[in-house]
Amino acid sequence: MVSVNTKRIESDLYELFKFGYNPKDKGVYRQGLTEIDMQARAWLKEKFIALGLDTKIDAAGNVCGRYGEPDKPAILIGSHLDSVPAGGMFDGTLGVISGLECIRVIQENNIKIDSPIEVIGTSEEEGRFGGMLGAQALTGNLTLEWLESARDPSGEYLSEALKKCGLNVPDILHVKRNPKDIKAFLELHIEQGPVLDTNKKSIGIVDGISGVYKWLIRLIGKPDHAGTAPMNMRSDAFMGVADFAHELQRIIDEEGSEYTRLTIGHIELKPGFAHTIPGEADFTLVGRDMDHDTMKQVATACKKVLAAIARKHKLHFEYDELSWLEPKHFSNNLLDIIEKNAKKLNLDYMQMPSGAGHDCQFFADTVPTGLIFIPSVGGISHAPDEWSHWHDVEQGSNLLLATVLDLCQEN
Amino acid sequence: MVSVNTKRIESDLYELFKFGYNPKDKGVYRQGLTEIDMQARAWLKEKFIALGLDTKIDAAGNVCGRYGEPDKPAILIGSHLDSVPAGGMFDGTLGVISGLECIRVIQENNIKIDSPIEVIGTSEEEGRFGGMLGAQALTGNLTLEWLESARDPSGEYLSEALKKCGLNVPDILHVKRNPKDIKAFLELHIEQGPVLDTNKKSIGIVDGISGVYKWLIRLIGKPDHAGTAPMNMRSDAFMGVADFAHELQRIIDEEGSEYTRLTIGHIELKPGFAHTIPGEADFTLVGRDMDHDTMKQVATACKKVLAAIARKHKLHFEYDELSWLEPKHFSNNLLDIIEKNAKKLNLDYMQMPSGAGHDCQFFADTVPTGLIFIPSVGGISHAPDEWSHWHDVEQGSNLLLATVLDLCQEN
Repeated sequence: MVSVNTKRIESDLYELFKFGYNPKDKGVYRQGLTEIDMQARAWLKEKFIALGLDTKIDAAGNVCGRYGEPDKPAILIGSHLDSVPAGGMFDGTLGVISGLECIRVIQENNIKIDSPIEVIGTSEEEGRFGGMLGAQALTGNLTLEWLESARDPSGEYLSEALKKCGLNVPDILHVKRNPKDIKAFLELHIEQGPVLDTNKKSIGIVDGISGVYKWLIRLIGKPDHAGTAPMNMRSDAFMGVADFAHELQRIIDEEGSEYTRLTIGHIELKPGFAHTIPGEADFTLVGRDMDHDTMKQVATACKKVLAAIARKHKLHFEYDELSWLEPKHFSNNLLDIIEKNAKKLNLDYMQMPSGAGHDCQFFADTVPTGLIFIPSVGGISHAPDEWSHWHDVEQGSNLLLATVLDLCQEN
Repeated sequence: MVSVNTKRIESDLYELFKFGYNPKDKGVYRQGLTEIDMQARAWLKEKFIALGLDTKIDAAGNVCGRYGEPDKPAILIGSHLDSVPAGGMFDGTLGVISGLECIRVIQENNIKIDSPIEVIGTSEEEGRFGGMLGAQALTGNLTLEWLESARDPSGEYLSEALKKCGLNVPDILHVKRNPKDIKAFLELHIEQGPVLDTNKKSIGIVDGISGVYKWLIRLIGKPDHAGTAPMNMRSDAFMGVADFAHELQRIIDEEGSEYTRLTIGHIELKPGFAHTIPGEADFTLVGRDMDHDTMKQVATACKKVLAAIARKHKLHFEYDELSWLEPKHFSNNLLDIIEKNAKKLNLDYMQMPSGAGHDCQFFADTVPTGLIFIPSVGGISHAPDEWSHWHDVEQGSNLLLATVLDLCQEN
């Protein structure tokens, strides 16, 4: 059985690491559609050309390298090249370089393939302008209206950023691939969570991606003097948030599942002075689950609890649902193929959902889609401390290779 | 029995209101040691001169107008002329103008007084540079070191602000009065809380000012991805704060008194992103009580609860005690005199502590000190909506007048 050359993957990942590496905090700053991001894309393009692949950078910035016959439905292997600010070495790049390695192994061993293989380094996955730009372009999920209005946190328009990269908005709408031209989409990624590491598993076979909703909740009370207002005469907005947070685990226990997540990640108190009772608390609630009905039940319970707590603390209660994304379930057929190969390779794997979003989720609606995780040490990612062991990189890449071979050799 | 002319007080308060009034939010912006604050002080100085008082603006910016013999111990009537940003019409100014009215009534009625009366419009009470600058200068509570290092939130040094007002730091140390020269210090102020309004009382006779401590607490966990980290593998710093806040009422019930206050007025989550579990929560806790031992018991209970919650949520816990001020209890003798006059005037009063600090508290250590409250409608102050009814202004001012007459005519 053929296998990947891990030293080669390691060498490529370290080369990519240099694009945007900051020696001060040892983090990678390779945000999507920046100059350094485009330099990394040019580097990948040269790699593809050196292998004799049919190579292009499309209008969304995706770097595509295709091996095999041009007109047959292809197996796509994709992940992203961009990073968050102060990100790590593996997030995204692992999936791209492992895909590249798959083609190298197939070429070196003169393995005959029936389906072409295309490796794609997707663009702007991490959210400078909202995230997963490349994957959404490839699957036709973008509108001209959104593309023209999108801005990054500094206020720069997506259209300006694209122009600096020699790209332009209207062409992005032509990046869409016909699902009939795609036989499967495969992604290898670090887990970015602690589940595999804690359970001492080398591989996660991902069966779907959690649905996620984001609320902005406002509890409005009265901003009194912290010394003069007796405890029983207050309308303290923060005490409302605290009571709500205190109920989250109960809500999950009663209405949720083992995959439910509820997180309050941001809060702003107004006026926010030590000596003033908070008259308003604005905070976010992000909820996730693998099941639509469970998401709805948990969301309904949260609203009931908020309403009851608002009454108790004499507060007003408002909320905006900023987003609601349904859970995605991956193709059972492809899951079976990945599992079969994991068994063949004698890998210690577990099936699991992904709590984080990934490029592949946009393909899952229309083409067989598979996502393979390897462990993140300590569950850490989006930080300079992000790390995955090389033996796990090897096992994940070999599982990707075996799955690709399985798919491109079946007819 | 003589009484105040409320129309005259109303007219003066409306005149002062113009100094710093902002028609946009209808708030007063008369922060201490600003140009507009000094204009208000010049206005008051002219008022004093017009009454033939012995008048000065001292090196701390206090405006002093004295009636009666120069060398005898005086009855001081003082409150502040400065406001918070977007403050109201009564906070501070009421006590100054009522003091002025007392002298006007005494002059008009040719009332013979045995003790001189001095009205003081104190400076920088509201905290641009820490607060109660004028009162601390008069009572010798300032050090050269502090005066030279104090800055406002914009970074401007107190010394620079003073220079712009024609004042200077070293002279402030000479503003201190000898306690032997002060027979009593009296202050009339709005309550700035809901107790009188809720209890439908016209007058609060204040028996002391709460002690107060301010802590900066840090709970430190791990900033994981809100999607990938299962609920039971998190070290969520915000959940620690929420659990702590949830225990505050129990701590008060078990260890505190009816005068205990515990407030979380400020919180900052790090990194503070909706999709990231808070890895750190920095928040303030402000505690108050009228009794030293109760303050200590409540503080100890807070530390125990924080330590237990930190263990439960796998967090580290640090805290800095930024300040600790002991409670102040006012002279019983003067309390009795004020109460006697309240009865004589047939006022509906209650005895109460003050949860907020006031200029008079610095005098309480060395001279007989009295503080009279009138109701704040809805308990509101430090806001454009601050209001007190004119009939309450009248009753409070008449109680001040009666008390002053009692004090300056005894022996």
